[in-house]
Amino acid sequence: MGLVVQKYGGSSVADAEGIKRVAKRIVEAKKNGNQVVVVVSAMGDTTDELIDLAEQVSPMPAGREFDMLLTAGERISMALLAMAIKNLGHEAQSFTGSQAGVITDSVHNKARIIDVTPGRIRTALDEGNIAIVAGFQGVSQDKKDITTLGRGGSDTTAVALAAALDAEVCEIYTDVDGVFTADPRVVKKAQKIDWIAFEDMLELAASGSKVLLHRCVEYARRYDIPIHVRSSFSGLQGTWVSSAPLTKQQGDQKVEQAIISGVAHDTSEAKVTVVGVPDKPGEAAAIFRTIADAEINIDMVVQNVSAASTGLTDISFTLPKTEGRKAIDALERNKGGIGFDSLRYDDQIGKISLVGAGMKTNPGVTASFFEALSDAGVNIELISTSEIRISVVTRADDVPEAVRAVHSAFGLDSDTVEAVVYGGTGR
Amino acid sequence: MGLVVQKYGGSSVADAEGIKRVAKRIVEAKKNGNQVVVVVSAMGDTTDELIDLAEQVSPMPAGREFDMLLTAGERISMALLAMAIKNLGHEAQSFTGSQAGVITDSVHNKARIIDVTPGRIRTALDEGNIAIVAGFQGVSQDKKDITTLGRGGSDTTAVALAAALDAEVCEIYTDVDGVFTADPRVVKKAQKIDWIAFEDMLELAASGSKVLLHRCVEYARRYDIPIHVRSSFSGLQGTWVSSAPLTKQQGDQKVEQAIISGVAHDTSEAKVTVVGVPDKPGEAAAIFRTIADAEINIDMVVQNVSAASTGLTDISFTLPKTEGRKAIDALERNKGGIGFDSLRYDDQIGKISLVGAGMKTNPGVTASFFEALSDAGVNIELISTSEIRISVVTRADDVPEAVRAVHSAFGLDSDTVEAVVYGGTGR
Repeated sequence: MGLVVQKYGGSSVADAEGIKRVAKRIVEAKKNGNQVVVVVSAMGDTTDELIDLAEQVSPMPAGREFDMLLTAGERISMALLAMAIKNLGHEAQSFTGSQAGVITDSVHNKARIIDVTPGRIRTALDEGNIAIVAGFQGVSQDKKDITTLGRGGSDTTAVALAAALDAEVCEIYTDVDGVFTADPRVVKKAQKIDWIAFEDMLELAASGSKVLLHRCVEYARRYDIPIHVRSSFSGLQGTWVSSAPLTKQQGDQKVEQAIISGVAHDTSEAKVTVVGVPDKPGEAAAIFRTIADAEINIDMVVQNVSAASTGLTDISFTLPKTEGRKAIDALERNKGGIGFDSLRYDDQIGKISLVGAGMKTNPGVTASFFEALSDAGVNIELISTSEIRISVVTRADDVPEAVRAVHSAFGLDSDTVEAVVYGGTGR
Repeated sequence: MGLVVQKYGGSSVADAEGIKRVAKRIVEAKKNGNQVVVVVSAMGDTTDELIDLAEQVSPMPAGREFDMLLTAGERISMALLAMAIKNLGHEAQSFTGSQAGVITDSVHNKARIIDVTPGRIRTALDEGNIAIVAGFQGVSQDKKDITTLGRGGSDTTAVALAAALDAEVCEIYTDVDGVFTADPRVVKKAQKIDWIAFEDMLELAASGSKVLLHRCVEYARRYDIPIHVRSSFSGLQGTWVSSAPLTKQQGDQKVEQAIISGVAHDTSEAKVTVVGVPDKPGEAAAIFRTIADAEINIDMVVQNVSAASTGLTDISFTLPKTEGRKAIDALERNKGGIGFDSLRYDDQIGKISLVGAGMKTNPGVTASFFEALSDAGVNIELISTSEIRISVVTRADDVPEAVRAVHSAFGLDSDTVEAVVYGGTGR
């Protein structure tokens, strides 16, 4: 008998009907001889409604109380789900993050899991129960305060529990059929990926793919927990994410799709250019120390070749649009210390990334990528590469056409258009 | 510096405006130099909405999960209230029942408090915080499961915390101005009571007065915690409930209103008559053992004088209408064992009770009570008395007129009509 961890997002349990449908699916897994642990997000719009209430009473809700508020959402969905399962004749018990032993640091609204001690879950399973666990939440180690894990928190809860319970698989149920070779809203001929390695999935997540978040994949890779991303609305096999193919079929696919896993894009970033920086040691460090002190994460960094005549250079970097104002303010405040002429800010950019472990040993990939973009008439503004990824920044308007061109050039187009549904809460 | 526990019901925190209004009142208490602990119920209709959801997924929601679900309501209101207080520039922290150390037995949906260990509350207060505590909920001693306390649970939480923290007073904020000499919806000239003894309040609560529930008053009497029932919508003094008057003014009132505290009524009960019971030892015991085994609480019991010719008698008792069906079924099932002719069930009854410690030493009270009912043309069906209470059962239709007549006969009528608001969730 195996142990399976399943995670259902807010769109899968949006109403009573959704909860009953999910309950049936959980009972099926139990009937198939598994011990089942279920991680559940808040119902549909619950979180947004709670945030709205918070904003009505306070313009700047405190982190501790905000977490206390938001965790009510999972409390509701998990209790209802346990009731629905019991109504189908199976035993179920629900547990808060704290009860499930999800121990975090004390950074409210975006806490990190530092330990999982699932003693009560283990007991509940041994007594024949299906265990339902609130996603997205934990309890802080030092103060015993309720914390939330931030974006993608429920996925991370599921993977962390799977690791602590030594589960066979962590199934992430969502409203799409799996991970695709490109966003199907942009590329109609995108294909579902049957299997993908952790490393490629990490790069796709870092490059804008929204199905799984980087942090959840990172956690799964560290503990080598296979993830199965699949739809809660269909019975189809989804995408397996693991260190190596788990079946012959997945192995075959690995050979076939050796070079490229997929094309990701991201239009949520902006570009900051620091103009007229003296080309001497310590200048870049001063800029990025300023940004880091403002607690802003940056993505790509490019330094232009210095113009010999002036001894000045430009440094560009990309960052989330939501952090743009903060970055500009921080740099302006420290203008004297850093030493630069001016700042340029551009939020009309997009990023296209090609991801695949195979490109390490296939030198032609970079050239083919640039040729495809050139043929589509797309101008490249910045370039950044890793061992298994190439990313370029273009005009935001060029992104859809660029993604389609690259997807086609690398032979990823499907012969048929696959149907998918989009939505979801990001928890 | 004193320690004050305040409790706010669901109608006081029904929306963001209500929460902000209550926050201001709490901050006033803090500014007056008190340490302040606040117990809060779920917002307005939240509980009903959660119950509705539960019924959609399961016709018979399990106790453990139902408690997990319902406690989300207080989690929301307490977090919002803490945010609203912080927004006014004061420190506040919210605590679940479990975090506040409210330890209960394991009877889900109607758990009883068996211990309060408010270490975290004490620490929060010592650090200068206002402590906000979820009413209505606790954690079971043996299984560490979330429990709810049932009807009146938030009031009981407040009194229990006040006892554990050795508070000066437990203020129960509600949507009426206090405890009245009769229900102001029935008796327009009912007066607010400034002070009432625990014993009289217990009898009023047992007789149908809804402002404070019996269990909360009982708890306060056991630990000698003065309760101040008052409106969250006005700044008026309400009703003090304590073992002895706390001020000269209350003492003066005690002398004035020595005989009668108030008139309570209750139309939520039904009457069961067991007809043709053999008049021999053990018969009554057999009937009430049957009722007790069905876990039904009864109120009044009357046995008629036996008719000498037949050796048979009738036994009547009253009980909540909601338990009527269960009682009849239990008796019918055990008809052979008990031995009776037939059962009569009557849910068109009402109960009127006169309560006052003074009646012990004023022999004329009972006579005056019956004369007042007689003058109003009200027929009496059952009579039951205690040291400080007389109750009669009449036709339900006669109740309003009977209450007014008795209220007037004992000189309780006010010269003016006092304005009050009604509502509330019973939590």
